[in-house]
Amino acid sequence: MDIAALRAAHPDHWKLATAIRVLAIDAVQAANSGHPGMPMGMADVATVLYRNHLKFDAKAPNWADRDRFVLSAGHGSMLLYALLHLTGYEQATLEEVKNFRQWGARMAGHPEFGHLEGVETTTGPLGQGISTAVGMAIAEKSMAARFGKSVVDHKIWVIAGDGCLMEGISQEAIGLAGKQELDNLIVLWDNNNITIDGRVTVSDKTDQRARFAASGWVVLSCDGHDPADIDRALTEAKKAKAPVLVDCKTIIGFGAPNKADSYAVHGAPLGGDEIKATREVYGWPHGPFEIPADIKADWEAIGARGAAEHAAWAARLDALSPTKKAEFERQMSRGVPKKLATAIRAFKKANSEAAPKVATRKASEMVLAAVNPVVPETIGGSADLTGSNLTKTSDISDFMPDNRKGRYMRYGIREHAMAAAMNGMWLHGGVRPYGGTFFCFTDYARGAMRLSALMGVPTVYVMTHDSIGLGEDGPTHQPVEHLAICRATPNTWTFRPADVIETAEAWELALSSERTPSVLALSRQNLPTLRTAHNQKNLTAQGAYVIAEAAGKRQAILMATGSEVEIALKARDLLQAEAIGTRVVSMPCMELFAAQPEAYRRKILPPGAVRVAVEAAIRQPWDRWLLGERGSEKKADFVGMEGFGASAPAERLYAEFGITPEAIAAKVKALL
Amino acid sequence: MDIAALRAAHPDHWKLATAIRVLAIDAVQAANSGHPGMPMGMADVATVLYRNHLKFDAKAPNWADRDRFVLSAGHGSMLLYALLHLTGYEQATLEEVKNFRQWGARMAGHPEFGHLEGVETTTGPLGQGISTAVGMAIAEKSMAARFGKSVVDHKIWVIAGDGCLMEGISQEAIGLAGKQELDNLIVLWDNNNITIDGRVTVSDKTDQRARFAASGWVVLSCDGHDPADIDRALTEAKKAKAPVLVDCKTIIGFGAPNKADSYAVHGAPLGGDEIKATREVYGWPHGPFEIPADIKADWEAIGARGAAEHAAWAARLDALSPTKKAEFERQMSRGVPKKLATAIRAFKKANSEAAPKVATRKASEMVLAAVNPVVPETIGGSADLTGSNLTKTSDISDFMPDNRKGRYMRYGIREHAMAAAMNGMWLHGGVRPYGGTFFCFTDYARGAMRLSALMGVPTVYVMTHDSIGLGEDGPTHQPVEHLAICRATPNTWTFRPADVIETAEAWELALSSERTPSVLALSRQNLPTLRTAHNQKNLTAQGAYVIAEAAGKRQAILMATGSEVEIALKARDLLQAEAIGTRVVSMPCMELFAAQPEAYRRKILPPGAVRVAVEAAIRQPWDRWLLGERGSEKKADFVGMEGFGASAPAERLYAEFGITPEAIAAKVKALL
Repeated sequence: MDIAALRAAHPDHWKLATAIRVLAIDAVQAANSGHPGMPMGMADVATVLYRNHLKFDAKAPNWADRDRFVLSAGHGSMLLYALLHLTGYEQATLEEVKNFRQWGARMAGHPEFGHLEGVETTTGPLGQGISTAVGMAIAEKSMAARFGKSVVDHKIWVIAGDGCLMEGISQEAIGLAGKQELDNLIVLWDNNNITIDGRVTVSDKTDQRARFAASGWVVLSCDGHDPADIDRALTEAKKAKAPVLVDCKTIIGFGAPNKADSYAVHGAPLGGDEIKATREVYGWPHGPFEIPADIKADWEAIGARGAAEHAAWAARLDALSPTKKAEFERQMSRGVPKKLATAIRAFKKANSEAAPKVATRKASEMVLAAVNPVVPETIGGSADLTGSNLTKTSDISDFMPDNRKGRYMRYGIREHAMAAAMNGMWLHGGVRPYGGTFFCFTDYARGAMRLSALMGVPTVYVMTHDSIGLGEDGPTHQPVEHLAICRATPNTWTFRPADVIETAEAWELALSSERTPSVLALSRQNLPTLRTAHNQKNLTAQGAYVIAEAAGKRQAILMATGSEVEIALKARDLLQAEAIGTRVVSMPCMELFAAQPEAYRRKILPPGAVRVAVEAAIRQPWDRWLLGERGSEKKADFVGMEGFGASAPAERLYAEFGITPEAIAAKVKALL
Repeated sequence: MDIAALRAAHPDHWKLATAIRVLAIDAVQAANSGHPGMPMGMADVATVLYRNHLKFDAKAPNWADRDRFVLSAGHGSMLLYALLHLTGYEQATLEEVKNFRQWGARMAGHPEFGHLEGVETTTGPLGQGISTAVGMAIAEKSMAARFGKSVVDHKIWVIAGDGCLMEGISQEAIGLAGKQELDNLIVLWDNNNITIDGRVTVSDKTDQRARFAASGWVVLSCDGHDPADIDRALTEAKKAKAPVLVDCKTIIGFGAPNKADSYAVHGAPLGGDEIKATREVYGWPHGPFEIPADIKADWEAIGARGAAEHAAWAARLDALSPTKKAEFERQMSRGVPKKLATAIRAFKKANSEAAPKVATRKASEMVLAAVNPVVPETIGGSADLTGSNLTKTSDISDFMPDNRKGRYMRYGIREHAMAAAMNGMWLHGGVRPYGGTFFCFTDYARGAMRLSALMGVPTVYVMTHDSIGLGEDGPTHQPVEHLAICRATPNTWTFRPADVIETAEAWELALSSERTPSVLALSRQNLPTLRTAHNQKNLTAQGAYVIAEAAGKRQAILMATGSEVEIALKARDLLQAEAIGTRVVSMPCMELFAAQPEAYRRKILPPGAVRVAVEAAIRQPWDRWLLGERGSEKKADFVGMEGFGASAPAERLYAEFGITPEAIAAKVKALL
């Protein structure tokens, strides 16, 4: 579209959209880094969205029934920041715009959840936003079913670029959303035919419209610079009975006379000359960061547009029964129900007495059977391994288009989208998600699992088949480095419980976590109950504790996790039989142990004794506990894996890889 | 299709296909674990493929011009094993079939490259096979362009299940193959509508045919149990001018009277009763593992079918010029050209003199400019970050449908498929692949990177922007745990070169590697040349070495990698100014250092001095070198990251996170 004609035809719109563009241009220029092209290209679509469609109240960024807006193409962060500033979000000041990408900025290089109100999720790694949005849409449907359309009835809007659509995770998200008929999800595709390497056609000739349609989406399109056409498409999108893709044909860097429609405008400042020329094209005589008062006022009026609707909603919320309202608010604010601790205590008591010999994946299922009835906001699921992960309890049914009260997600063979969708559910509020796959396939979900940690989303990853103990499926399915990977990731609790009791304790911690995701690494193979004396206290909360004390003089300390605690205890028997006093420390969570006061750590790992750590995985995370914490190289050793596993029955693998009581005892004796 | 009718209509086919089925059933039963349903369902398709279409010679499993067969649905491994046994692959004995999934077995739970001839790639993690096959197809096109259709003219056949097609990586592979118009790639989709959780429709309603067509594939279909119909589809597929999806409608567990067409037959032995009943349905009176001699002979004739074609091909290869033939054989056998070492030495000499101050990503580009002309089998690429990764040298052009001699892949925003395709290129032979993205986005490629390590495929991962040094893009793009992740992965060399010289040395090692993949973690920011005295020897090969010796009595040892070596050297200046003798050790590759004899390690890290390690990443991998190797907790400290990074200019981040010469010097002094 010709810019002069556009300006003439839609003068009010033009001013609003141009304010976004120049803020993006100026902020990127001032920061001397950033991505101006996308905000310039999508300003028209975003203006129409915020002006006419998005349900929001700039003065109440956390209004529960607001529409969610997800900028999946997170590099275009200035589009979002400009919108938040212009519409009057309190934290999104002009000073912050000027501080874009600087130390301590709320307006980080890519939008980061928790830094700035109005940023619904962290984006930047491509494809995450659209997949997280699917989780938000699921949460909306779940909440609406549980609390009623009178208080939950909103849309999830996404802006996604070609990069998002080329990432594999997008297919997982598209397939999941299509199957679930999420008609509350609308993706606005910034179809500008440009990627960093040039035209999209350099690397792809996919007909995106046909691809989305193949998964049951409604596909619409519009001229992404014509406000009337955009408005028509968005109006239609809201009426669809399926998730919607709106193909918005746009020009990246719209209006930059020399750089528009090229990758040159994607990820670098325009430069002084081009900015000057662009301002002339825009008819924008104002200086850097200067927004005329009337245009700012018009934008703030848009920001206030939802206030009345917000007030009406508040009245409807008040009309709920006090119990229902309180429960709605508890779930939206992510509070932990008081009954959780009681249920876990009762579970521990019963099972320390019953002392079942079960795999910790089975123990996890038993815990969930006790937990799900008292934590009604859980939504469980699995990436097509329900019978293996044991994530579905009998009291919950499948979440489906015709059963939105269902609390079990059939994610399909889509580990990455599962993880991203779980992030989205929690970010939306009202849902506490957990989901399972084989521990080894955290490899497929890493991108989203890292975002759980970075955002502080307490997703629970139920990762079963956690070692060579899975046996015959072989090394492709046997994690050896994955405990190290999870432990290397900041703000992640990696639990590897040793028995049914530790499993219950890990679940209690995971479901009570406010801002830390949890990985539960669970065994395929059966393990005895080791904690047969009931203790109300959650010992796993300390990360490590003495599970068997040395008889006589303490000469050795064995440290182990999960299925290897049993083996360590047997090694202790061998050593004690030779009068070698041996303590066994169970260490279900290194991160929580590291967070204990030094005095506690020293009590568990006193200096003097030889130390042997036992874990069917690589040694890397153990050096701290073996050699550090007053340990010493001369008195420390490790029993575990040095390379990949193999295909054979589990018992044989443990024997062949030397993870046996005898091998442990021999190492201890060699050190004495 | 009615089984009785099928048997009557195609008696020869039926016997051949049934031999596959019963071997799969018997082997799974004997192993008491495995997946019988898929081989039972796809036996007809596989029989027609091997009998009439696949170009192979069972007596020459490594014939360069053979068709490649990739079992992407790797859990159906017994399908492949049965085919290899029946057609007469020497290693695929009946004893091996009986040893399925046992310790030391060639026939592992999932097909593993290197365990058994005829297994072209390791599969099991879903979606990997189809994506690896795309790389094989690219390699075939490249080799055909470079050596001629007379010696390179074959197909890549894939069997993929619903699981493969639901994984996100499959979309990346489909898009890449479609864009590249890989008409040598044929995917046979085992469309049985069953996943582990039940019907596919529980989690997906994607029209797969439309989805593939949207990316430019030819889509065919057949009744997957009717040999005539299968043959028609496969015949047509070979003529297509684009990659082909053949939708093979099948029944999982075909013929099992009580378990067919259900998930019950997917991943567990059939059990004695069902096996008996199934044998009756099949009309197969023979005992377990019993294949009548006539049927075995028919299969072996199929295995010998390609011998004449193989001989004709050998004659055509001999007809090439001796130089061309020798080069073909060198590339196919993955030999390293002798000129590589010479080029690297010349590069090091020139650059130790010129001493450029460049980012190591730029240094990498400079090395590649020297290397690509003398290693003609490299195919470079990037996941849409060419200008950032600096992976394209001026002498190579884009690999495209109209330019198959091109040596640069525009992978698009598809990190996972890039990694898998690179595996496929090397597995095919004739290509040494390298490819780039941001180091942080190894998260997206982990699934395939792990397979590089597990298979022993020496892919080179060019991972730029390797720390908070990337600056303003912020923590979503700043790796902190990724060095630990790569180092935790067995059989992976993680290089983090400190300057242009170490970068050249790392490249030499990576391109000379026979069975170990390499990750090159490269800086965004400029770094000075530290090694200004030319040394012919590749010091990086030792993993760590003294880059600056202590003046006077050695009181401290600083260890660092990459961009932090410069900082450590500045800290040394501060310390030496206070007469604290300080050695600086550059440790570009921990794995290679760990592999050195103890005497060498001790020479580099002698006991006594205090040790401080410096790396803009988490500490986990460093404990071994700080606390172990005769180090001690009381005399060791770490300067690096404890959590995620932030969005700000790089210098500011280094200052705020305390990775400075002053902070290092202070820690050393605190320990003295």
